[in-house]
Amino acid sequence: MRTQVVIIGSGPSGLLLGQLLTKAGISNILLDRVDQDYILGRVRAGVLEWGTVNLLEDVGVSDRMHAEGLPHDGYLLAFDGRDHRIDLHALTGKRVMVYGQTELTRDLIEARAASGETSIYSAEKVQPHDFDGEKPFVTYEKDGVTHRIDCDFIAGCDGFHGVSRKSVPEKSIKTFEKVYPFGWLGILADIPPLEELVYANHPRGFALCSMRSPTRSRYYIQCELDDKIENWSDDRFFDELRRRLPAHHAEAMVTGPSFEKSIAPLRSFVAEPMRFGRMFLVGDAAHIVPPTGAKGLNLAASDVHYLFEGLREYYGEKSSAGIDVYSQRALQRVWKSVRFSWHMTTLMHRFPDTGDFGQKIQEAELDYLVQSQAASTAMAENYVGLPY
Amino acid sequence: MRTQVVIIGSGPSGLLLGQLLTKAGISNILLDRVDQDYILGRVRAGVLEWGTVNLLEDVGVSDRMHAEGLPHDGYLLAFDGRDHRIDLHALTGKRVMVYGQTELTRDLIEARAASGETSIYSAEKVQPHDFDGEKPFVTYEKDGVTHRIDCDFIAGCDGFHGVSRKSVPEKSIKTFEKVYPFGWLGILADIPPLEELVYANHPRGFALCSMRSPTRSRYYIQCELDDKIENWSDDRFFDELRRRLPAHHAEAMVTGPSFEKSIAPLRSFVAEPMRFGRMFLVGDAAHIVPPTGAKGLNLAASDVHYLFEGLREYYGEKSSAGIDVYSQRALQRVWKSVRFSWHMTTLMHRFPDTGDFGQKIQEAELDYLVQSQAASTAMAENYVGLPY
Repeated sequence: MRTQVVIIGSGPSGLLLGQLLTKAGISNILLDRVDQDYILGRVRAGVLEWGTVNLLEDVGVSDRMHAEGLPHDGYLLAFDGRDHRIDLHALTGKRVMVYGQTELTRDLIEARAASGETSIYSAEKVQPHDFDGEKPFVTYEKDGVTHRIDCDFIAGCDGFHGVSRKSVPEKSIKTFEKVYPFGWLGILADIPPLEELVYANHPRGFALCSMRSPTRSRYYIQCELDDKIENWSDDRFFDELRRRLPAHHAEAMVTGPSFEKSIAPLRSFVAEPMRFGRMFLVGDAAHIVPPTGAKGLNLAASDVHYLFEGLREYYGEKSSAGIDVYSQRALQRVWKSVRFSWHMTTLMHRFPDTGDFGQKIQEAELDYLVQSQAASTAMAENYVGLPY
Repeated sequence: MRTQVVIIGSGPSGLLLGQLLTKAGISNILLDRVDQDYILGRVRAGVLEWGTVNLLEDVGVSDRMHAEGLPHDGYLLAFDGRDHRIDLHALTGKRVMVYGQTELTRDLIEARAASGETSIYSAEKVQPHDFDGEKPFVTYEKDGVTHRIDCDFIAGCDGFHGVSRKSVPEKSIKTFEKVYPFGWLGILADIPPLEELVYANHPRGFALCSMRSPTRSRYYIQCELDDKIENWSDDRFFDELRRRLPAHHAEAMVTGPSFEKSIAPLRSFVAEPMRFGRMFLVGDAAHIVPPTGAKGLNLAASDVHYLFEGLREYYGEKSSAGIDVYSQRALQRVWKSVRFSWHMTTLMHRFPDTGDFGQKIQEAELDYLVQSQAASTAMAENYVGLPY
């Protein structure tokens, strides 16, 4: 087989890149080691920057999002028993879209199927080769048979644990990492959410009230890293969540049985560079952010944008200028989002090692932030997404 | 002896409070364990917020400051070999005044002498008494004789090591502290400074180019806490300083013999509350900030402002409302300045424990900060001083 671009990984970044390439007349094959049901079973982020929304519009995969998604003009920062609205739209002229990653992925899978481009699921032993030369190729096994796809470029959209980054010699890559000393215990439940997202700083720990739709709530509380979901009945979860919220939210909250419950660790991770010859790393394959601020999917989308611009220039204008600066351009925005996610995580969680001083600093920052137009704007412009 | 307010400590906060009280017709006695030469020999801060400038104007101690001080409309943030101007005036409509604390103290001492109010220097064994009751008094020894001053109120302006805070029972006070894992090696030299203040973030450590006058420079470099000034000849100091600056500053810098050289540790410290019955803590007696951002003296000035407003209300309007909220009002602003000083320290220094990730986060924040109008404004409004 031959194609122009092999995309490894069929999560939202691989699918989005595929749609952009297909629309620009650049042939591509999508390869994934798992099947579609597995991909659609993953519960992930749900807040889209408007830049991400625009990219989905560009590829014609936005009808259901606009029909069912929830545009949000702001969110609430809760601390010290009160909450304060960060009015995203008033501060930045922009908003965000609440639309579950699962729904988005489903829309992209349907569009991919309709486009007729090749997607290969349940591909075993996927392996990129010779990306440091002029003739890269990718091999995989299916039903015991080894296949080879020759290509011009490889896009590694296969996430943190994927084969793409792991195929790069260790000496060619530099990694940066911070592991946070707590986790997020999250539930999904088919109960009406609060009206807006609430990010709560509380002496008992962080809490987040989020949503996927008008009838589906997503709630999180900060927990110990070694805690177990078996310790958390729905009742105990809601009791603890409400304790961390201002009273009017605790009272307004509708509770009900959860259908998903999990504990996730929080990590910041960046690999540099994001290009290795004819292979590019995209999204989680190159960087992980903690979920605070909902940057993970949006950062993958901006990587896709930069890479697509580079590839379009390469094929359309016979110029490698765009792919040559891909890593640098992407990383500039990556580090700004990594910083924002780190900052929002640091601002909102209890840290075991910073003590009373750390807590007072958080309270002073929150107090300043909600009183200062400039500081509120800085937070809002990061939340809605810095320009590409 | 009897007076309305005994002020313990004759640094700039005690002197400024004394002038405000005297001007309002409230009698006061200033007590200090040291003499004026000692006070004038201390080398301290040099950047005044405009709120501090206005307070000095209020008490008629601003002529020499306006004649000899240097109003600054901005400063430079240097990193990654370049610098970026934070245009304080364009961003906030305000500026700062560069005027050495020693000069300011001299002006205040002269004004105090001219006012005829009593100042007692070299007072030994100063001790506040009975401030939790209605009839507080202060005792001290001079030439072997014990003296007693009865008063309505005691203002503890005697610094971190002073007797005022130490006279409060431990159970009545809560303290918050952060000690930073490095120091500042600073020199004073009679050489022309750079045109503007330069705050430099560099892989070798923080550097600050400051000034006291058009002919007197104040330079600092981050150093190890256990370093010794004997290790630092002037030549070595300037070599290291220039290495941490963008090339054009290193080249423009005039060097020359220093006449003062010292290593200072960096600490954030806050004691709560700031009122104990009829005794008030003011400035360094209640809180210490690291020098990054030059908030120490300015925070003392805002404490003085709040306390003076409270005392003026007490004597003028027979209302204790102002003194009752002194601690709360002062602490709100204290914590915002403590946060800013902590943040600027955290942003600009090398920390031994945050590694490569920490350095990248700093670079990303600086990169974002100088590109974002909102983030630059937030930094600038803190630097020129949040409103009283």
